[in-house]
Amino acid sequence: MTGRLGLLAFRGSLPALVAAADPDAHVITFRGIEAEVAPTGGNAHRFEKMGAVIKELKRAGCDRIVMAGALARPPLEVTKLDFVTLTFAPKLMKALRTGDDGLLRAVISFFEGHGLRVVGAHEVVPSLVAAPGLLAGPAPDEAALADAARAGEILAALAPLDLGQGAVVAGGLCLGIETLQGTDAMLSAVAATDPERRPRARGVLVKLPKVGQDLRVDMPAIGPQTVEAAAEAGLGGIVIAAGQVLLLDRAALLAAAEAAGLFLYAREV
Amino acid sequence: MTGRLGLLAFRGSLPALVAAADPDAHVITFRGIEAEVAPTGGNAHRFEKMGAVIKELKRAGCDRIVMAGALARPPLEVTKLDFVTLTFAPKLMKALRTGDDGLLRAVISFFEGHGLRVVGAHEVVPSLVAAPGLLAGPAPDEAALADAARAGEILAALAPLDLGQGAVVAGGLCLGIETLQGTDAMLSAVAATDPERRPRARGVLVKLPKVGQDLRVDMPAIGPQTVEAAAEAGLGGIVIAAGQVLLLDRAALLAAAEAAGLFLYAREV
Repeated sequence: MTGRLGLLAFRGSLPALVAAADPDAHVITFRGIEAEVAPTGGNAHRFEKMGAVIKELKRAGCDRIVMAGALARPPLEVTKLDFVTLTFAPKLMKALRTGDDGLLRAVISFFEGHGLRVVGAHEVVPSLVAAPGLLAGPAPDEAALADAARAGEILAALAPLDLGQGAVVAGGLCLGIETLQGTDAMLSAVAATDPERRPRARGVLVKLPKVGQDLRVDMPAIGPQTVEAAAEAGLGGIVIAAGQVLLLDRAALLAAAEAAGLFLYAREV
Repeated sequence: MTGRLGLLAFRGSLPALVAAADPDAHVITFRGIEAEVAPTGGNAHRFEKMGAVIKELKRAGCDRIVMAGALARPPLEVTKLDFVTLTFAPKLMKALRTGDDGLLRAVISFFEGHGLRVVGAHEVVPSLVAAPGLLAGPAPDEAALADAARAGEILAALAPLDLGQGAVVAGGLCLGIETLQGTDAMLSAVAATDPERRPRARGVLVKLPKVGQDLRVDMPAIGPQTVEAAAEAGLGGIVIAAGQVLLLDRAALLAAAEAAGLFLYAREV
């Protein structure tokens, strides 16, 4: 018999989807992070006082948690750290130097060390990810699939370097590789390409998790604004990894792809 | 005893530098490509009539050529192709589908098949490239060298895919990978990064040739505007491959780096 689900709710629409899928979930929110769901305990927590978070989750009978929503690195006030958080601080500091993956691994091991298993939002809400196949728009032609394959190769080459969740290829030529700034920034750069230098093919955006990326806490995501930015950039479609990319606002996402005439295709992984 | 040098002059300042270094060079220019040097034969050639180019170079006693300057893929009028160019067309069409490297290999083998060895501009003008060491600005610190090393790893990972002449890394995080749009576009994207997401380190631009890139016809290049764009992007310095990256307008380039307080460092390769 499993216990309750704890929901650490950050920014965006994702926490509300998880809360709707599991109405028994115990919701935790944080000061300075406006969540779209109300905290079950009535009060927002501080990142500096993780001891109180652990205590509340335990008291509520939780044995596992989902961390849902967007969270920029929060500014911590060192003088306000409680004891539980302080004991975690040296690990956290070390992890911060090893990049996002190291940081998230440290956060997961922190909660699991306190008896709270970390699960992914898509494990609670399976409709957050895609089954393999065409999700929306016209079927991709062979040239588009070849472009998608080359973008996949580029991302695979970068994966050992803890880099690369997205790439754009058109007519075999690479027009964009996602870096720190994210997918939308990459698509803006693609949109700004000198038209004379662009190949005739419209091009494909490929979004995949990095090899070894922990999908419980760090999943690539696309939403309606991704489709709009891809359309602005003149692309013909988007290929994602089935089961491994979050579909934010799924209905609006699929409608946006249909409206723009862009294919949205989930590749078996 | 070697023959004369033929100079195929395209856009920019490079052809004039080559012509100044070898005043005996026989200069060929092309219609639609404004060159900063005058054609020795008096008339600009057509890309469609390479037979006439070969003939003029042979008559002038040339046994080797330099292709210097910037050349976007020229629009060819198929009805104007001469016989020599026509026999090359099938190879050219095939090469166009395999990317820039394939295209340039085809062009080289075309000229060499007609007895004209293709040499690099830097072989005629050695000062076009850098000797190893610090060229301008303050010496890079250890953190900057570590960022440069990571950028080098990223470029090495992409090299087998015929991709990646430039990358920007700051504090271990990748802020930009050069794609079709070129170095300046990448630096603009870096400059547009949300300041809150940028690491404290200023960051380093690394420019290297791709592994296997043919330096005779396709060399990475930096110039004063690269330094200005790097400064705009907040970077601390630029690392290039010694002997393998063209320094356009060398005096102005070094002065720009000094003025901006950016280091310019040539790495032994």
